[in-house]
Amino acid sequence: MTSVAVDSTLHSQIVETVRSVVGPGPVVLHEPRFAGNEWAYLKECLDSTFVSSAGAFVDRFEVELADYVGARFAVAVVNGTAALQVAFRLAGVQPGDEVLIPALTFIATANAVSYCGAVPHLVESEERTLGVDPIALRDYLRDIAEIRGEHCINRHTGRVIRALSPMHTFGHPVDIDGVLALARDYRLILVEDAAESLGSTVHGRHTGTFGLMGTLSFNGNKTITTGGGGAILTDQEDVATRAKHLTTTAKVPHRWEYVHDEIGYNFRMPNINAALGCAQLEQLPALLEAKRRLFERYREAFSDVPKVRVVAEPDGCQSNYWLQAVMLDESAARARDAILAATNDAGLMSRPTWELMHRLTLYESCPRMELPVAESLARRLVTLPSSAHLGLEGES
Amino acid sequence: MTSVAVDSTLHSQIVETVRSVVGPGPVVLHEPRFAGNEWAYLKECLDSTFVSSAGAFVDRFEVELADYVGARFAVAVVNGTAALQVAFRLAGVQPGDEVLIPALTFIATANAVSYCGAVPHLVESEERTLGVDPIALRDYLRDIAEIRGEHCINRHTGRVIRALSPMHTFGHPVDIDGVLALARDYRLILVEDAAESLGSTVHGRHTGTFGLMGTLSFNGNKTITTGGGGAILTDQEDVATRAKHLTTTAKVPHRWEYVHDEIGYNFRMPNINAALGCAQLEQLPALLEAKRRLFERYREAFSDVPKVRVVAEPDGCQSNYWLQAVMLDESAARARDAILAATNDAGLMSRPTWELMHRLTLYESCPRMELPVAESLARRLVTLPSSAHLGLEGES
Repeated sequence: MTSVAVDSTLHSQIVETVRSVVGPGPVVLHEPRFAGNEWAYLKECLDSTFVSSAGAFVDRFEVELADYVGARFAVAVVNGTAALQVAFRLAGVQPGDEVLIPALTFIATANAVSYCGAVPHLVESEERTLGVDPIALRDYLRDIAEIRGEHCINRHTGRVIRALSPMHTFGHPVDIDGVLALARDYRLILVEDAAESLGSTVHGRHTGTFGLMGTLSFNGNKTITTGGGGAILTDQEDVATRAKHLTTTAKVPHRWEYVHDEIGYNFRMPNINAALGCAQLEQLPALLEAKRRLFERYREAFSDVPKVRVVAEPDGCQSNYWLQAVMLDESAARARDAILAATNDAGLMSRPTWELMHRLTLYESCPRMELPVAESLARRLVTLPSSAHLGLEGES
Repeated sequence: MTSVAVDSTLHSQIVETVRSVVGPGPVVLHEPRFAGNEWAYLKECLDSTFVSSAGAFVDRFEVELADYVGARFAVAVVNGTAALQVAFRLAGVQPGDEVLIPALTFIATANAVSYCGAVPHLVESEERTLGVDPIALRDYLRDIAEIRGEHCINRHTGRVIRALSPMHTFGHPVDIDGVLALARDYRLILVEDAAESLGSTVHGRHTGTFGLMGTLSFNGNKTITTGGGGAILTDQEDVATRAKHLTTTAKVPHRWEYVHDEIGYNFRMPNINAALGCAQLEQLPALLEAKRRLFERYREAFSDVPKVRVVAEPDGCQSNYWLQAVMLDESAARARDAILAATNDAGLMSRPTWELMHRLTLYESCPRMELPVAESLARRLVTLPSSAHLGLEGES
C-alpha cells in the first residue's frame, strides 16, 4: 500500500516541482531563442539575393562551426538525418552491411542506416551515460563477431559489421574511451551521432570529433537552430572534400558543363538557413550556461522528491544539457504514463524516450543484443521543459 | 567558307544581342527577386520562434500553392529532388523497377529513381517541346515492352517499367496529351517533374497536375524560391496524406509516444523557408509577366541574327519562360562552345543543357532509346540570362 500511495501522489509532486522551476503558463519542451543577430543576418542574406545553394553564410557557418567544435572541417547540410546518411556512405557502409547503433535513439539513426541499404544492429545502453555500453557490447561481439582480414563479420548473419554509431543521448556524452577502444579492436568505423550534443565535451574535447566523422543537427528543437539543418564534422580533408561533393549533387567543377561523377544528393544547407545559424552560433556559450543553470535549478527542486533524480552529466564530461530529464526509480516506473499525463495536462510539456527501435514494427527483426538496461531506461525516463530561456536570470 | 565565316562572327553577334536586351554589367543566369513581403514574413516567423518543423507558414504555403496550381493538395518538402524521390516511392517504384525519364534532364530526375533502387530508362525528346517525345516513345515501347496483367514489362530486362516522369524543360510543357495516352495504354504511373515549370500551363491547366503526382522546386535559381524547397502535388487525398506522413519521419500521431510505422524521411520544409515562399508566391503573377516580356525582347532582338532562334512555348501552352534559350541551327552547332565562352567572358552568364544522362559514367549503362533529337538539342541549346527583373519596365 505504501508504494502505491507514493506513486499515486508522485505525479502531483512532479508537476509542482517542475512548475516551481519554470514559472507559470504553458511551457513547451524546447524552443529556440533568437536574441542576437538573427534578424540582421537574415536581412543581409535577403538583400544579397543569395538565399539558396550559393552564398557567404554557408561558408562562414562551416568555418565558425568547425572552429567552435575543434574539428578541421564542417560540412553544412539540410538536416541531421542527411548528415548521418552521407557519413555512413563515406564510412563505406554498403547494401547488406550492418551498422551498430543504440536501440535507444531517435529513428533518424536507424533510418540513415536503412537509406544506405544496410541493417541497423541494435546495441545496449548504460544507465550512467544513457548511451552505448562499450563493455556489454564488447562481450557481445566476442560471442557473435570475428575479424576476417580487416573486417568485422557477424558470424550469425555472415554480414560485415561496418560501423558503430553511438548517439549522445539528450546531450550526455557516451563512454567515448570505451567506444574508441572497441571500434579499434573490432575494425569498426566510428561515426558519432552528435545530433543532440552540440556543446558537449569529454575531457574538454567536443563530441562528434572522436570518430572518423561526427554529425550534428540544427532542427528547431535543438540547442541552436537553422530552421532545418545539420553538419558533418571530420578532421580528414579527403573525407570533407567528398562530403561536400556528395552533398552538392557530385557535380564536377567546370565553367559551364553539367557533369556529375557519382550518385550524389541535393543536401546542401541553403544560405538563408546558414544565416540563422551564424547568429545562433554566436549565442551558443550563453545558451549553454543558461541550460546548465536550469539543470541546477531542477536538481535542487527535485532533491526532496522521492524515487526521482534529475539526470546529470557523466563524470569527466561536460553536457550541453540539451534535454533535461528525470529518471524514475524502477519501483516508480509504472507511474511514468501518469506523470506524462499530469505534466502535459498542466501545460508542462514532457515526453518519454523514443520508442526503442526493436519495438517498432519496421525494425523489430533487426539483429540485437539483450537490451535490459535500454528497456529499463525507456520505462523510467521523462524529459522536461528544457529551453535555455528557462535558465536565464529573471526569465523563469 | 561562307558558313565558317558566319560561325566565327556568330558568337560576337550573340554577345551584342544579349547585351542589347539585358543592359550593362555582369548578368547572372537567374536570380530571385524579393520585392514583396519577404522581410515581413521572415520577421513574423522569427518572432513566433517557429522557424523549423512546425509553424503556420508551411500550412499556408501548401494551401496557397495548391490553390494557385489548381491541385487539391500540395505537400512542401526540402527540395525538388526529395519531392521526386517520395513521389516515386508513392507511385510504387520498387528496387529493380525501371522508370522512364528523359535523357535530357537535370540529374535530380535520374538520382531520385536511383534512390528508390530503381533504374532510369532514358527517353528521346522532341524539338517542339524539348521534352519527352510520346510518339517516338510509343514506337519504342511497342518493340521492347509488353503488358502482363496490369504491369508494363521490359522484355529485354524482364523488369517492370513502373512509371513515366516527363520533365517540362526550361518551363516549356511537354506534349501532355500524348504522354497521358501513352501512360494509360502502357499502365505507367505518371509523375510529372515540374521542377522548372511553376506557372506553366497546357490548355489552361497547370503542369504537374496531370499525373498521379507532380513535383516542384523552389531552389534559388527557380521562378520563385524558398532558399531550398520543393513540393509534391496531387489530387488524391490518400496520396497526399501518405506524402505528408513519409516526409515527416512516418510518425504516428500520439500525445507523447514516438512511434513510426515505416521508413520515412526528414523532408519537411522548415517554416522559415515556407515564410519566404508565401511572400514569393504573392509575386508570381508579376514575375511571370516580366519573364514573358523578357522573352519577347529576346525574340525581337534575335530576329536579325542568322542561324539562331529564341525558344518559344509550344502551341496550346503557356510557358513560365523560366530559362530563356536560343536554339542554334544544326549547321551552327559547332559554334556552341565559342558562344558559351564569348558570352561568359563578356559577363553574360550562359549555359548549355545538362549533360545527357547516358553521357555520364554513372548512367551510361542505363537502358535507353535511340536519342538523335536529344543529342541534337544538347549540341544546339544555349541558355541566357533569364531573371525576371530583366523583363521589368525600366529595369533592363
